[in-house]
Formats: sequence, structure tokens, C-alpha cells
Amino acid sequence: MAGDRAGASRTGGAAVRPDPHTSLASPAEVHRSRLRARRLGIYTHDQAVVFMRTDCHVCRSEGLTPHSRVLLSAGAREIIATLYQASDGLVGVDEAGLSEAAWSRLGLSDGDPLFVRHPDPVLSLSSVRARIYGNRLEGTMLRAIMSDVVRGQYSDVHLSAFITAGAAVPFDRDETIALTRAMVEVGDRLAWTNGPILDKRSVGGLPGNRTTPIVVAIVAAHGLTIPKTSSRAITSPAGTADTMETLAPVDLDLPAIRRVVEREYGCIVWGGAVRLSPADDILIRIERALDIDSEGQLVASVLSKKIAAGSTRLVLDVPVGPTAKVRSAEAAQALSRALSEVASVFGLETTIVLSDGSQPVGRGVGPALEAHDVLAVLQQACDGPNDLQERACRLAGALLELGGRAGKGDGMRLAAETLSSGRAWDKFQRICEAQGGMRTPPEASHRRPLPAPAAGKVSSIDNRKIARLAKLAGAPEAKAAGIEMHVRLGDPVEVGQPVCTLHAVTPGELNYALDYAASTEDIVEIEPR
Amino acid sequence: MAGDRAGASRTGGAAVRPDPHTSLASPAEVHRSRLRARRLGIYTHDQAVVFMRTDCHVCRSEGLTPHSRVLLSAGAREIIATLYQASDGLVGVDEAGLSEAAWSRLGLSDGDPLFVRHPDPVLSLSSVRARIYGNRLEGTMLRAIMSDVVRGQYSDVHLSAFITAGAAVPFDRDETIALTRAMVEVGDRLAWTNGPILDKRSVGGLPGNRTTPIVVAIVAAHGLTIPKTSSRAITSPAGTADTMETLAPVDLDLPAIRRVVEREYGCIVWGGAVRLSPADDILIRIERALDIDSEGQLVASVLSKKIAAGSTRLVLDVPVGPTAKVRSAEAAQALSRALSEVASVFGLETTIVLSDGSQPVGRGVGPALEAHDVLAVLQQACDGPNDLQERACRLAGALLELGGRAGKGDGMRLAAETLSSGRAWDKFQRICEAQGGMRTPPEASHRRPLPAPAAGKVSSIDNRKIARLAKLAGAPEAKAAGIEMHVRLGDPVEVGQPVCTLHAVTPGELNYALDYAASTEDIVEIEPR
Repeated sequence: MAGDRAGASRTGGAAVRPDPHTSLASPAEVHRSRLRARRLGIYTHDQAVVFMRTDCHVCRSEGLTPHSRVLLSAGAREIIATLYQASDGLVGVDEAGLSEAAWSRLGLSDGDPLFVRHPDPVLSLSSVRARIYGNRLEGTMLRAIMSDVVRGQYSDVHLSAFITAGAAVPFDRDETIALTRAMVEVGDRLAWTNGPILDKRSVGGLPGNRTTPIVVAIVAAHGLTIPKTSSRAITSPAGTADTMETLAPVDLDLPAIRRVVEREYGCIVWGGAVRLSPADDILIRIERALDIDSEGQLVASVLSKKIAAGSTRLVLDVPVGPTAKVRSAEAAQALSRALSEVASVFGLETTIVLSDGSQPVGRGVGPALEAHDVLAVLQQACDGPNDLQERACRLAGALLELGGRAGKGDGMRLAAETLSSGRAWDKFQRICEAQGGMRTPPEASHRRPLPAPAAGKVSSIDNRKIARLAKLAGAPEAKAAGIEMHVRLGDPVEVGQPVCTLHAVTPGELNYALDYAASTEDIVEIEPR
Repeated sequence: MAGDRAGASRTGGAAVRPDPHTSLASPAEVHRSRLRARRLGIYTHDQAVVFMRTDCHVCRSEGLTPHSRVLLSAGAREIIATLYQASDGLVGVDEAGLSEAAWSRLGLSDGDPLFVRHPDPVLSLSSVRARIYGNRLEGTMLRAIMSDVVRGQYSDVHLSAFITAGAAVPFDRDETIALTRAMVEVGDRLAWTNGPILDKRSVGGLPGNRTTPIVVAIVAAHGLTIPKTSSRAITSPAGTADTMETLAPVDLDLPAIRRVVEREYGCIVWGGAVRLSPADDILIRIERALDIDSEGQLVASVLSKKIAAGSTRLVLDVPVGPTAKVRSAEAAQALSRALSEVASVFGLETTIVLSDGSQPVGRGVGPALEAHDVLAVLQQACDGPNDLQERACRLAGALLELGGRAGKGDGMRLAAETLSSGRAWDKFQRICEAQGGMRTPPEASHRRPLPAPAAGKVSSIDNRKIARLAKLAGAPEAKAAGIEMHVRLGDPVEVGQPVCTLHAVTPGELNYALDYAASTEDIVEIEPR
């Protein structure tokens, strides 16, 4: 209860204490807000949750109610978490039980002191509200929003409002540029010294589309720098890092990554050691739940990762197909234009390659099965998957042209030569050695072919259902698990002929996948002759 | 893996079982998805959460991951819940632990069989996506959305997207009407036989604004039907039902409500026994978290409750002030217009009363303290709060005019007469008796005045901080707890003169409120002379 703000001596609270400006950090308050941290082993994906007793002294003194957002602090670290209250049993009256996500972000040990209080208002939310009501966002506002997003200040309700507002009244070009910049700035950035820095990215959604190891090998074989950081699978049966891990170590820290790239020009490592555009990882979960991808958000998502990685020349693979992420040629063209324009603002030269997204790529779906496809192409095995080789050559060719090693229109031929001459395979083995030593991908002990229920022609393959089937068989946790496809669109099949083979490392997982296959229609559709 | 869809005999899955149409409800599947329900005593407000072991057979066979949405079924009841996984300890490997919200909605007993599986896609979300991308929503779509919202199919991410889309591209009049209708249709409806059905509602945000019991008594004293259902506090220190409960029972079922209204023309009961516009209760939590109130959503929220309650003539109290819900005269005018126009479509005649929202109403803030104010006005005590009496008379007067008991402009005088003659007090006592017997509001044993820190004039009172202070003192759970205000805007005060008195039922709660008062500025601002 402050009175006169002009004179400090007269300004006052309600005078129940001598100093009305006593902050919440006064010794008595600190004691009141203190609990003992307890690890509960509860997995919530990335959601920070704290469990406290309804009758604990902090809930009482802070007036905390279930589902409220609370500020947790331990040492110098602070996060905002969702509070659930427990009547008894789960935690003691002087304890705060934490989800694994909250536990690791606070870096706690059991019994550590933990302070819990009402969070300060999240100021950047006023910009989100302004955006909802139709005002465009300036760079400083987007920067403040992304900063708070990365600090975990936004609940799902807030994140969804931001994403929705930017889709309902689409981010304009200026906002998209500012958003991209903000997403870069709130994370780590890599800097490289040598020449153009090449990179590639696929705009997701296609099982088995594991061109990266092949592309990196071809491009690095020509002395071009391509320091590729990749992700592990979040909802798919394999990420590039999961596949590559069956061939070589991928958990490299930044100095190790630099050593590999200095020696071999290229690497294929997991990006987890560096926080490149961490806001993207948070926003993408919400976009997935809403199943919306606004153009501005997608452009900022793709480019912020690459700009943060220090890339200067980028090839983007955009698969187009009915069950892929981009579903029409028009959508692909509009997206390409937006990507190129925004990329150029950041000095990032881009080539967009539209590709067929109507069916899985190669034969394998799952870490080790995809690695086998990669090896078959690199080793130029006579039965290697042609579609994977062709896609890899198109992308590598575009990069060779961007990097000045091939003339316009000549890159793809050069890429194919680099494969057939064995130079790409040689380079790949060197990269694996530099990353810690080449490995042999594991093989699954439990296999079961799925026979065609009718004779006819393969008329469609559902990418999403194939992905689900591979995950039920154990991918990506079980590296050897997944699906081996035996047919492609247009292939004729006889009754009982295997359309694919399930690979699993346990009988239980094999059964889960078999159950799903038996109860699900249209995974592979067969049109009768 | 279905083949030919034309001929059932040839349509098939991957033929690992004879019948490819085996549904998820086959005996083997049912067994696989079955767990034992366990009550965990975890309070999450209204969020349905289920805790399962990472290694439990259902998580494995269904491919469930943390934070996914799952369908829980027990007997005929189904809900969608958020899944959190536990490594061990919390629940057994064949158990599903439930939050209280999930537990009560499923109507379970410990050990009951519970089935858990992937939910079907929520079809109405495609309408939400269409709305985000700029398409207007038809009545059938809004009906499907509200139906899924009430069935708990929407996560916070989805709810927030719906609210945000309707604020970013505001609901037009047709949508607002259709939304209002949809919200009415997915809940219960009351029907009354006698004459016009009167009702009132305040558009929130003002502590102590407890006019309802007075208004109902005045209006019912004139033989007009006013069956008032009220809510309990959600985030405020008192709801009308909380205050009324200190004076008479309010937990009446529908037959009991009818008996009271038939006998006395009016009632003041808790609306919990009837589900009037239940979607509103769900959406309002999201609007609060976002701190946005789009006009269309607010109109649908207010009117759907009243239409569902069977009201035909309505007086709306819209307090306007810097810390009230509606903050400017222009906003109030636009809102009034929208409310009147939409209400008229449903045959609901409305009068909007704009009122001063710059400070709390009456003296008490908290259930029993507000009840004392109500009694003082009804009993015409010489020191009763004039502002509360005047507001009640304005609203009751508007209702008397709407109900045909007073000519235009004559209602307020008639209302005041009804109070001064004792007719309103008499009617109020009869209503209390009909509801189960009149009670005496409790008094708090722990009280502490908060003295003014400086001499001067009261220049502002923060409604939101006053509400928080009353809640820390224990309101509304502790009925006697809250704040008694001693000053109003413009009052002169001396140093040390009490500006308000805290009331609490425990010393601990008194201290929580005192701590907050000491550390918070501008609860009551005093301008030096």
C-alpha cells in the first residue's frame, strides 16, 4: 500500500512493517517459500511439473491453487512450472516433487533446497495479446517473446495463442525476418572460418528419406565444408542422428565437431551438444498438436536452425505428396519463395529442390535399416535403392553447384560420379573414423513378412501409418527395429506376396506391430487388376 | 492394409489374421489395453491426467509416449486425459493412477478396470483449423466444437487456438449467435411456466459487488419470477453462492429450486446442480490465462448461461473502471450493443446498466463480510453501505421496469421503497426459509487493521490486489475471512488511520495476508495533501 511516490520517507505500505519495500526475498519470506526437492521419476515430455501438498506451508502462504504457474528457483537457476497439488502420500508436506523435465532443467540433487513462489507477470505476453488484436510485432517484441519462450515462461495456452495468432493473421515478411532473427539470437551460434559453409535440410514427413550421410560424403569429398548437425527422432521412427549412430558415434561436443570438420570438411553429428534455435524445439510441439504450419513459422523454424549453425549456402529438400508435410505444388512454390527471400536477408544462399513425397524413400524405415540403405548406395551395391541414390545425387548436385564445384545443371552428374568412383564411400569412412570409429549396424532377430491380402497393383502407401508401424516395432529406441519395404507405388503384387517385413528385437514388439497392421486399413492400398 | 474397397471379401489387412476388420475391441486387444484404476489424490483443477508406468504393457502395445493424449474408458464413461509416465514407485505396472478431475468424471472406485488407448482423431479440430485460416464457422461446426469441448476432447493447446482465432479475426454477429446457441445446446436447459422470467448478471471484476440477494428480494417481493442460479468463486474471494451460503443453504437440486420459486417467486442458489452452458466454464479458464476477452466470446459466455437458465428478461451490470473487466466507456458501449442484439435473437429482452467500476463495492470482501453488507441494506441499518444499496436499487429498478411493475424511469424509486418499507427484507427471509432455513454469517476471530502509511487523500484502490489480499486471508474457503474496507476513493486519511481490516480464522492466514500487504505497493494509494 504505497502512498506518496515522490518522497521515499513518506512512501509506504500499510505500515505493518517499518519498511514497506521489503521484497519477497527478505529472510522470513525466503524461509517460508523453501521446500526440499524430490525427484519423482515422472516423464512429461518437456513439461515442467511440480507436485506439492495442498496443506504445505508454501501453498498456504503464497495462496497457490492447483494448475497455477509457479516460479521454482534452485541456486541461480529458475524455471516456471505447473503446480499440481496432492492430498498426501505422493510427497511430504515440506517437499516439492518434480517431473524429470523440471528436475534436469534445475540441475538438482535429492533434498536440495527449492524455493517456490508466484512468478512475476510475463511482460512479453502483452505483445502476444497485441498481436492477437491485430498489431504487427517489432523485432524487439519478438525477441522478448522468444526469450521468454526459451526460458519456459510460456504455458501451452500461451504458446498456442502465439502460433495461432501468427497463422490467423499471417506473419508478414518483416515479421518473418524478425522472428527468424529472434529465434537465432536466443540460442547458441556456430562460427566457421573456411570458405562457404554448406548445409542441407529436408522439410520432413517422409519415412526413410535418409539422404544426409550420402550428401555430406559427396560434398565433403570435393573439399567443401559441410558441418551437418542433425536431430534425433521426436515423433518419427528415425532421425538422421539415430541412423548415423548405428554407423559411428554422433554425440560430439563442439571442439570435437570442429576437429572432424577441419580434417574431413564434413561431419554428421547430433545437434544436442549445441543449442541451435531452441525456441523451435518448443514451438514445434504445439504446431504438431494443432496440425498447423503457418508459412512464416515454418520459414523461421527452418532458417533459424541453419543461420545459427553458421551456414551460408543451403539446399532445401521439399517433398510434396498427399501424406507428406507439403501437400500441393502451389503450397510448395509459395513456401520456396518465402524461404529464399528471407534466407537472402541473412546472407544465406538457398536452392530449393521439390521432390516426390508420395511414398517412403529407399527400403528401410528405422535407424539400422536406413543405415543399410545408406551403405548400399555409398558402396554402390548392385541392388541398392535407386530412389534414395537419385534423391541424394540431386541434393548433393545442388550443393556442388552452390559451392562452385560444378557448373549450373552439372552438379547431379558430378555427384553420381563421386559415388560411382568410390570417392564418396572413401570420404564417408574417413568421416566415421574421425567421429570415433566406424560401426556395423545391428540386425533384428525377429522378422515377419506382411503378405498382400489381394492381388493387384500398389496404389498408395500411407507415410504416416508406415511410420507408426515402425515405431510399434520398436524404432527408434531399438536401433535394429523397423520396416523393410518390398514394394513401391505401381508395383504388381500377387496374393500372399510380402509387401514389407517387420523387424523387431523382442517378440512382444513384433506382436504390437502385427496387431496394428491387422487392425488398420490402407497402410498399403492394393487396387485389384 | 486394405486392398479392394469395393468387395468386402477381397478387402483386407495384411492378412496376418483371418479377419482384417478386427476392431480394437476384440477380446485380445481389450485385455491388452486393461489396467486397474487407482486414485492418487492429485489435484489439477479440471485437468484429466493419467499416470502409467513407462514399461506397462499398455504403453508398450499402444506405443504411448509422455504427454500424449489418451482415451480412458470405464464402463460407459469415456474421457481424454494427458498421459504422464513414471519410472517406478508412483503406480504399479498394471495400474493407471488418476488425477481427481479424471477420477470423478469417470465415476471410479479403486481397482476398477480401466481401458486406455489412442483416442480417435477429434474431427471438429478441422473446423478450428479452417477458422484459423480465415473461414467463418457455420452453426453445425460450432456445435460440434462445443460438443467436443464439453466432452473433454480438447487440450489446452486446442482450446487456446479456438479462443485466439476468434479474437484475432473477431467472431462476426452470425458466428456469435451460432456460438451462443451451440453453448446452450451442449448443456442442460431450464424451462419455467410462469410469465416473464427475470435475471441479472454482472460482467465481473469488482470485489464486494454482491447486489444479487438484494435485487432478487426486491424483484420477488413484487411477484416477478427470478430464479437466480449463481456460481461459487473460481479465482475471486467470493461468488454469490459462497456469500449466500452463509445466510441459507444453496445446494438445491432442480425439484427443490422449483419448489422455492413456485412459493416465493425468487431463489438465490448455486448453479452446480444444473449444467448450464458447461462449455463456458471450460473456455473461461483459457481466457483468464490469456487475459483476453473477445467481444463475441464474452457475449456468448454471458448469454448462453442465461438462455440455458430459461430467462426472458435480463439486466446486465457492466462495471467500467481501470482495474475492472471493461476499462473504457467506448468498450462498454460496443459490448452493450453486441449483447442486446444477440440477446434479442433468442427472445431475451435486455437492459444494460453501466456502473462505476473504480473501487470495491460496499465494505466487505469475502463471503460472510459481504453477507453482512447485504443484511445491512435489507434491514435498512442506518450505517448500511450506500453504494451497494444504490447499485442494487438501480438494477432492481431496471428489472421492475422490464417486468412491467414500474413505468420507464420509475423502477429505481420503487426498488428503494421496497427496501425502506421492509418488504424486501421480509421476502428475503422467506426465500431463505424456503431454501432450508436462515443462518447467521460467521465472524472471524483474528482481525488486524492496516493503518495508512501517510496522511492524504485516497487516490486509487486496486480491485485485483484487494481480491488477492482477501484470498490470502482465507476467503472463500474460510467463510468469515476477507477484508473490511474503511475508506473509499477521495476520503481524507491521517497517518495510522486504518484503511481496512483483515479478517482471518487462523493466525497463519492473517500473517500471509499481512506479508502480502507489507510487500505490495499500490493496493490503496494515498495522495499527499
